[in-house]
Amino acid sequence: MARSVITFQKPISFLSGAAVVGGLEGQGPLCSSFDLVCEDSKFGMDTWEKAESEMVRQASEVALKKGKISSNNLDLIFAGDLTNQCAASSFGLKEQNVPYIGLYGACSTFALSLGMGAVAIEAGLGERVMCAASSHFASAERQYRFPLEYGCQRTPTAQTTVTGCGCVILCDEPVNSVRITEFFPGIIEDFGIDDPANMGAAMAPACANTLLRYFSATGTVPEQFDMIITGDLGMEGQKILKELLYSHGIDIRKNSYDCGNMIFDFQKQSVHSGGSGCGCSAAVFSGTVLNQLQNGKLSDILLIGTGALLSAGTVLQNETIPGIAHLIRIQKEK
Amino acid sequence: MARSVITFQKPISFLSGAAVVGGLEGQGPLCSSFDLVCEDSKFGMDTWEKAESEMVRQASEVALKKGKISSNNLDLIFAGDLTNQCAASSFGLKEQNVPYIGLYGACSTFALSLGMGAVAIEAGLGERVMCAASSHFASAERQYRFPLEYGCQRTPTAQTTVTGCGCVILCDEPVNSVRITEFFPGIIEDFGIDDPANMGAAMAPACANTLLRYFSATGTVPEQFDMIITGDLGMEGQKILKELLYSHGIDIRKNSYDCGNMIFDFQKQSVHSGGSGCGCSAAVFSGTVLNQLQNGKLSDILLIGTGALLSAGTVLQNETIPGIAHLIRIQKEK
Repeated sequence: MARSVITFQKPISFLSGAAVVGGLEGQGPLCSSFDLVCEDSKFGMDTWEKAESEMVRQASEVALKKGKISSNNLDLIFAGDLTNQCAASSFGLKEQNVPYIGLYGACSTFALSLGMGAVAIEAGLGERVMCAASSHFASAERQYRFPLEYGCQRTPTAQTTVTGCGCVILCDEPVNSVRITEFFPGIIEDFGIDDPANMGAAMAPACANTLLRYFSATGTVPEQFDMIITGDLGMEGQKILKELLYSHGIDIRKNSYDCGNMIFDFQKQSVHSGGSGCGCSAAVFSGTVLNQLQNGKLSDILLIGTGALLSAGTVLQNETIPGIAHLIRIQKEK
Repeated sequence: MARSVITFQKPISFLSGAAVVGGLEGQGPLCSSFDLVCEDSKFGMDTWEKAESEMVRQASEVALKKGKISSNNLDLIFAGDLTNQCAASSFGLKEQNVPYIGLYGACSTFALSLGMGAVAIEAGLGERVMCAASSHFASAERQYRFPLEYGCQRTPTAQTTVTGCGCVILCDEPVNSVRITEFFPGIIEDFGIDDPANMGAAMAPACANTLLRYFSATGTVPEQFDMIITGDLGMEGQKILKELLYSHGIDIRKNSYDCGNMIFDFQKQSVHSGGSGCGCSAAVFSGTVLNQLQNGKLSDILLIGTGALLSAGTVLQNETIPGIAHLIRIQKEK
């Protein structure tokens, strides 16, 4: 068992999923799969941080409504985000009155929450578990980089933090045929990248490490999956990932997708290297990918959440940027 | 099962525990139970933040050494701290090359890591799991309050962030007779406290909520436990907790202890309302309490980690301070 993949014995299923995004994401190619698009990036609040909490609150409400349950029927919430002390999640979910476990995995947080949600159900800690992650372009920019008012230019490798929240409710009953079947937590990898405007490069080695270990541990090959979806390496990071794996004799070029590249239209939208932020893979999965699994377009996928474990402080102190990547396998029962 | 206590079926045991603290903590009454006391609060590094990471690294090394294993034999690490984006933990543990799951529970993080570590073992995600939490007085002061150089006076209800790290290794084999038997995750409670210099008051209601729900769900009474240990309410918060519970007909006055009050000598040390920070309950448990369980002085305890879910940003935006409290039961097998 040590360091190998956990294969769930219980039928870990999706009771519901909800995706709430901002205006820019609503203009992208996945628009129709999101539950709510809020043109007002302040979500009716007076600060960006309160806006992010409000977006989280709305996503949790939509997930409960679509699952036809109230929060009284939830046993547990796993959530996390990029704001300092993960305040967006705790403030956004505090009114649900549900046992709450905060996670931190940077942009890998959504995959991590799915994995830990499934582990909690497997162990018997709960039967219905909410898993959520969020990010907001404006709260992230001013926390990690510069206040938006400065109008700073960004470099071509910089990613665009997605304003979005994805939220699913997992359960231990086979309500439909889509299952989380495996979880494989990632190891922190530090390849010495120190450019906070190139997080794709910082995360790609961790993602390659997780995939190489996973294929080796399970004896699987890339071709057997409908999609290998990373979130979020962006254009730059996904290119590095493919090259890294190819140098190890693994070819994922045919079925590799990245949430950061899926959510925007690179021809029409100025998003540099693509989307990032916990909310990107959370919204793309909860909105788009989960639907495709449920309607049969996909039947066996790997979702690999990738995170860059930097803070504004570590960058100022000239630290490098470690990366991490957590893997989830989701299958449709035959 | 819903929202009740998880009772572990596997014999979740402590392979080892390590506590590393700073100079002030080393002058306190628990000094002899800590593995390392570092008089240099910079731990040989050039910044407070790097010092905290180095302290975490040292604690993990001591725990591995005491457990007589190398990190190759670890399946998983759960860790968290108070620094933005939990950088102290990820930078302090990145060299271990072990699958890593970041948690955020403010000062409740250590109890949360024990709980999630036990859940991971129960589900089969790993057999040997490291659980760690840390805090550093100086990194916390400048992040949450003021740079130390300002020499600001603190109010009597303010707690003193402990410079410390506690780290244990859990395993699924009965290496001795001490077991984590139950885990009960907490619900976020917001009683409208908005004074960041009185976090005991912000956390006490969440702690009372967790204990009331626990006693009700399990049919247990306070008297049957050798110790009900909170971490860290400090003098102010512990007083409020006792009063809140007493108003509900629950009397914990005889066997209630708080890590924030245990770690310092209030007669000789100027620590205001007592210790706080993720590292306080982590070090007091891993150093002092675990020893007392192992040598038979304690045989049935509740450890309740209490966290205040604020950030510097939420305080500036006039938000209130929600609290959370996660409960662990640890018993000596008869």
